[in-house]
Amino acid sequence: MVWNTNLRWRLPVTCLLLEVALVVLFCIFVRYDPDADAHWMDEKLAGNISSDLENEFYYRYPSFQDVHVMIFVGFGFLMTFLQRYGYSGVGFNFLLAAFGIQWALLLQGWLHCYREGYILIGVENLINADFCVGSVCVAFGALLGKVSPIQLLIMTLFQVTLFSGNEFILLSLLEVKDAGGSMTIHTFGAYFGLTVSWILYRPNLHHSKQPQSPVYHSDLFAMIGTLFLWIYWPSFNSAVSSHGDAQHRAAINTYCSLAACVLTSVALSSALHKKGKLDMVHIQNATLAGGVAVGTAAEMMLMPYGSLIVGFSSGIISTLGFVYLKPFLESRLRIQDTCGIHNLHGIPGIIGGITGAVTAAFANSAVYGEEGCLNTRGLPSVLSTPPSDPQNLKLPGQGRHRLRRSSWCCRAGNTGARQAAPSLVSWPWGVSTLPSPPPGGLPESGEGGVGDKASVLQVLAAGSLPLGSWWSHPEKSRQGWGWGWGWTQALLRGN
Amino acid sequence: MVWNTNLRWRLPVTCLLLEVALVVLFCIFVRYDPDADAHWMDEKLAGNISSDLENEFYYRYPSFQDVHVMIFVGFGFLMTFLQRYGYSGVGFNFLLAAFGIQWALLLQGWLHCYREGYILIGVENLINADFCVGSVCVAFGALLGKVSPIQLLIMTLFQVTLFSGNEFILLSLLEVKDAGGSMTIHTFGAYFGLTVSWILYRPNLHHSKQPQSPVYHSDLFAMIGTLFLWIYWPSFNSAVSSHGDAQHRAAINTYCSLAACVLTSVALSSALHKKGKLDMVHIQNATLAGGVAVGTAAEMMLMPYGSLIVGFSSGIISTLGFVYLKPFLESRLRIQDTCGIHNLHGIPGIIGGITGAVTAAFANSAVYGEEGCLNTRGLPSVLSTPPSDPQNLKLPGQGRHRLRRSSWCCRAGNTGARQAAPSLVSWPWGVSTLPSPPPGGLPESGEGGVGDKASVLQVLAAGSLPLGSWWSHPEKSRQGWGWGWGWTQALLRGN
Amino acid sequence: MVWNTNLRWRLPVTCLLLEVALVVLFCIFVRYDPDADAHWMDEKLAGNISSDLENEFYYRYPSFQDVHVMIFVGFGFLMTFLQRYGYSGVGFNFLLAAFGIQWALLLQGWLHCYREGYILIGVENLINADFCVGSVCVAFGALLGKVSPIQLLIMTLFQVTLFSGNEFILLSLLEVKDAGGSMTIHTFGAYFGLTVSWILYRPNLHHSKQPQSPVYHSDLFAMIGTLFLWIYWPSFNSAVSSHGDAQHRAAINTYCSLAACVLTSVALSSALHKKGKLDMVHIQNATLAGGVAVGTAAEMMLMPYGSLIVGFSSGIISTLGFVYLKPFLESRLRIQDTCGIHNLHGIPGIIGGITGAVTAAFANSAVYGEEGCLNTRGLPSVLSTPPSDPQNLKLPGQGRHRLRRSSWCCRAGNTGARQAAPSLVSWPWGVSTLPSPPPGGLPESGEGGVGDKASVLQVLAAGSLPLGSWWSHPEKSRQGWGWGWGWTQALLRGN
Repeated sequence: MVWNTNLRWRLPVTCLLLEVALVVLFCIFVRYDPDADAHWMDEKLAGNISSDLENEFYYRYPSFQDVHVMIFVGFGFLMTFLQRYGYSGVGFNFLLAAFGIQWALLLQGWLHCYREGYILIGVENLINADFCVGSVCVAFGALLGKVSPIQLLIMTLFQVTLFSGNEFILLSLLEVKDAGGSMTIHTFGAYFGLTVSWILYRPNLHHSKQPQSPVYHSDLFAMIGTLFLWIYWPSFNSAVSSHGDAQHRAAINTYCSLAACVLTSVALSSALHKKGKLDMVHIQNATLAGGVAVGTAAEMMLMPYGSLIVGFSSGIISTLGFVYLKPFLESRLRIQDTCGIHNLHGIPGIIGGITGAVTAAFANSAVYGEEGCLNTRGLPSVLSTPPSDPQNLKLPGQGRHRLRRSSWCCRAGNTGARQAAPSLVSWPWGVSTLPSPPPGGLPESGEGGVGDKASVLQVLAAGSLPLGSWWSHPEKSRQGWGWGWGWTQALLRGN
Repeated sequence: MVWNTNLRWRLPVTCLLLEVALVVLFCIFVRYDPDADAHWMDEKLAGNISSDLENEFYYRYPSFQDVHVMIFVGFGFLMTFLQRYGYSGVGFNFLLAAFGIQWALLLQGWLHCYREGYILIGVENLINADFCVGSVCVAFGALLGKVSPIQLLIMTLFQVTLFSGNEFILLSLLEVKDAGGSMTIHTFGAYFGLTVSWILYRPNLHHSKQPQSPVYHSDLFAMIGTLFLWIYWPSFNSAVSSHGDAQHRAAINTYCSLAACVLTSVALSSALHKKGKLDMVHIQNATLAGGVAVGTAAEMMLMPYGSLIVGFSSGIISTLGFVYLKPFLESRLRIQDTCGIHNLHGIPGIIGGITGAVTAAFANSAVYGEEGCLNTRGLPSVLSTPPSDPQNLKLPGQGRHRLRRSSWCCRAGNTGARQAAPSLVSWPWGVSTLPSPPPGGLPESGEGGVGDKASVLQVLAAGSLPLGSWWSHPEKSRQGWGWGWGWTQALLRGN
Repeated sequence: MVWNTNLRWRLPVTCLLLEVALVVLFCIFVRYDPDADAHWMDEKLAGNISSDLENEFYYRYPSFQDVHVMIFVGFGFLMTFLQRYGYSGVGFNFLLAAFGIQWALLLQGWLHCYREGYILIGVENLINADFCVGSVCVAFGALLGKVSPIQLLIMTLFQVTLFSGNEFILLSLLEVKDAGGSMTIHTFGAYFGLTVSWILYRPNLHHSKQPQSPVYHSDLFAMIGTLFLWIYWPSFNSAVSSHGDAQHRAAINTYCSLAACVLTSVALSSALHKKGKLDMVHIQNATLAGGVAVGTAAEMMLMPYGSLIVGFSSGIISTLGFVYLKPFLESRLRIQDTCGIHNLHGIPGIIGGITGAVTAAFANSAVYGEEGCLNTRGLPSVLSTPPSDPQNLKLPGQGRHRLRRSSWCCRAGNTGARQAAPSLVSWPWGVSTLPSPPPGGLPESGEGGVGDKASVLQVLAAGSLPLGSWWSHPEKSRQGWGWGWGWTQALLRGN
């Protein structure tokens, strides 16, 4: 960190203050949910649960660990492709994610799991906190090399807050289904990041980059990130789906979509290069678009061929975005997008929303089965199955949630209608608002008024920060640039 | 990709055509299996299944993700040890695997899960598709730096087809057990790859390699591949075994075998170096031979000490192969083996086949238990347990497959006999056929006629491709060489 | 390996002899435990077990694979931060761990799972063997660049032996709870390693290091190790906890503690740097202290805020240790600590012991529930739940261990007292004994006499080795230094 001494104490003080605040809030609000509490034994007797395996832990934990790898290794190393920002990419991503998951546990808890004065957390909350932070990692991708860790921490503070609000509106109020987070995680994160990048526009950004031999290795490091994201994406999209078939189906659909996406990305990357070469940037990013685009519909009856079609088109569109849209955004709209998140998360996210809307609109009992659409309220605990919704309301009393699941496909039909509204509306809207800072991610924009409210909040967020003035300060933000190199020096001296 | 303009459009067109064909075929044939279909609720009621945990997803998914990591990160990074072919290793492996898994889902589906006009896929199909592609990754190891992505895609198209046929003959017709794929995956892949390498022989292959400082880092990247392969191999060998003890046992046996293999590989590597140094190539490859060699017998009652003995010997033989056999193959038989797959997959695979044959031959009710050998047909669903066989015939009606499992150890005895035939025969045969292109992997060769049929098919495969002529065209294949470096340039310009 | 020819055969002979001995001992003693044996079918009938999912494999296997990644990739790559010792770090760690897990299976088996003349191993034994080896990897961190592989193998032989004895005394005799191994794994490993490092003190150790450009990449490689350790630590601390809530809770607590630790480590790292820069060494190591410090108490009702407090303080203390204590140890106490294990494992381990003691001391039926504290002996198998203890006595007859679980929280109270003793005593004791070789890890020291016995054993271990004289021989140990570079040469020539 190369900054002058009056900034000397900002990072330590910020980190410590934030962590102290988190400790206090956790002490007041956060407790274990019934599956993680020592009273689980009583819970089992009361609910006549025959095996410890019925503990939510065994349904979700393997997926949680996969998602955890994606957030910290996947997103972190994906950003090491710039030789000078390897440390920034991995290190800052580490820092913001570690802060973000704690803050997300609180916010998502207040909105979704607040019972009798306490937030009750279990493994599903950990997954959702990781999801929320994933959205911040996406946004960071547009700002790599432009921001200091303090700016990132403050951005995380606000983005996690807005994310949770947006998620609550979409999933709880409008009952939109978004298991893989195409809308809530990727689209929101991408346009939030582009907004901040637009605010922090700096003309000479990419002139300082000197491509040198390490670039070759930098790209191999980036491939580590790409591959772990690609491999674990089925877990990402299935982590919070309904137990049983929905979780199973989400993994299969994502697997198919990602495989198709790789072939079309390679095809376009080669076709668009004047000598037919492949561009590592496309291999590292566009190949993942299939996972983003199938997120919303992954747990639905999309059918394997449906997944292939989604992957097929998103790979093409994403690569086209990297070749034509990214330079356009920077040159005309003064939006710098270091990692091309608009092409990897923004547009594919919108495709995902639309796909989800269309798929949900075709839901009916022929497709989802009589039993699947029969309201299971009152059925014996044999059928008791926890709900799929990320906002999973865990009522302590009603431990096994036997009331919720069937509501999923029963309401799939009209959910489709509801889902169609924001998504389809968001498509033209998304394009038209790009020049100006978009209102906190497209998904919101559809739901009359919400988007506007969010945009106001966000402008406040960007404007009225304690360090707000700092953001657009050329002197300060240029210092952000020194980091990558600053760390190397720090190390040479530090060790 | 440095190639002249008349080749300019080949890769994009090939990729797009293949993917379009896959979409059409998936649309016609592929649906979800009962555990992944929304009718799972009805399934549960019908089968009187008490918990969603009985969904195949929860038995297999963690192993699936581990196998997925091995295919894309493990095999990919294992091939980055050559400084100039880091991109080729990781990138091409990514491309061929992404295509291969889709094609494998279709072929294995037609042969093993084709019901009432549809292929019904679930998590077990995903694992088997990854297995099939693993065999292609093995073959690619012999061709690293010699082939273009188009050649790889076409090779994948044919190898996956032959693999599925070979697998069907061995596992379905001859009812050979090969849970870890020592024969079907590793031996087949190795000799298929060596065959192609023999066809593509190029005299001055290794003269163009300039060892430079990055080599040091290249080898650390390769260690990433090695370690993830080593760590997750227990999942590889146990992924499709019977539920319960067989899966548990397969993991333990593989764990033991791999550990023993590391010590003997290190011992031989040091002993065979004139100054007692260790050779990173042995550390990266020979240490994995134990996993290959224990594959077939892993789920059987091999006993922990049996696993140690298998690992012990395979580590020694594999290292000897790297030191003495590899140069011999190249100089005398004109077979270039860039990554030494013959020593890591070929010979250990044969050891695995023999080990499996011997172990299976000693199977009896004393070892496997009365209950284990009693045919459970008609037992209450308490005992219903899905079968272990990779060819897992999922009859929609008979969801829980309660008819199959016990047949496993009951037939173990005569299976041993059947298994002994191909394996033991393949041993001398394998050696004797090395000079000439071996007939599509040894396992086939044993089963009178099949091998010959396969070899014919394969020669056709290599000969009558649309691009067949291209393969042996020196001008063209020399261009294959430009890739590693071409990508670096592409990147410097591309970014 | 640059050594003179009279040492030429030592490594091969050592490896082969050790492996042969292991094969013989496995042949005599090691068999499968009931869950992994083919008689599992009979087991199920006898125990009226309704599903294969009740097989221990499905409770533990995902956690096992995560721990496996930590040991081989996590610890291995964490030690690649020194540019010249990348191979040594990864390669030697690979070798010692592969040997250690086999030896640990035997020793822990004799002490904990020895029934009717046989050691019965299952997935839980594999996890505990990995844990034991983790302790050796910790010790290796202090010796990186100073020792030859033979020295490491011999150190492993002795450390695994002492570890198992120490573990048996703490967990079996004193019934101390240490699920995450703060005391048994981390503190023991750290002080064992520092003892050996003190014996092998070499004045000019760090003068030979030339920081060069690859350092930048070396640090990215080290981040791979850091992140995989950080991500999978929740699995590490929960892997052998009780089924159900304890395992669930251990994961949540570790997740929270690690997240808090990152922020305070960053804060201190920046605050203690004269220009406010961050030091990669702190990012790579101190951020993990939270996982170590929460190990013992993770499965207890520590409460999420309790975990945050533990992470908060351990991050601060660990970073302070790197800045002030490490140079002090080297300059004054002549203890070289290459990777700073005293700050990452030693001190946080002691904090973990104390935290566990305090938490356990407050255990009561209000916190753990009536049912949790009621002795479940004789309850129907509905409640049968395997025990949490690492020393898990698997009586073949009593397969489902229904007698053990509740004892956990029932004895939590007085366990607290017992636990408090060694831990609290160990705190001043630990400090006071640092200058002299500490008696084989602090946890022991508390239990009158044991510590002294162990220390005697350990001095014998360090002193009376076949190669004991070699250790302190300047000529020989200087050669240890040649390794990193020697391997590069070996490779350039070897390939």
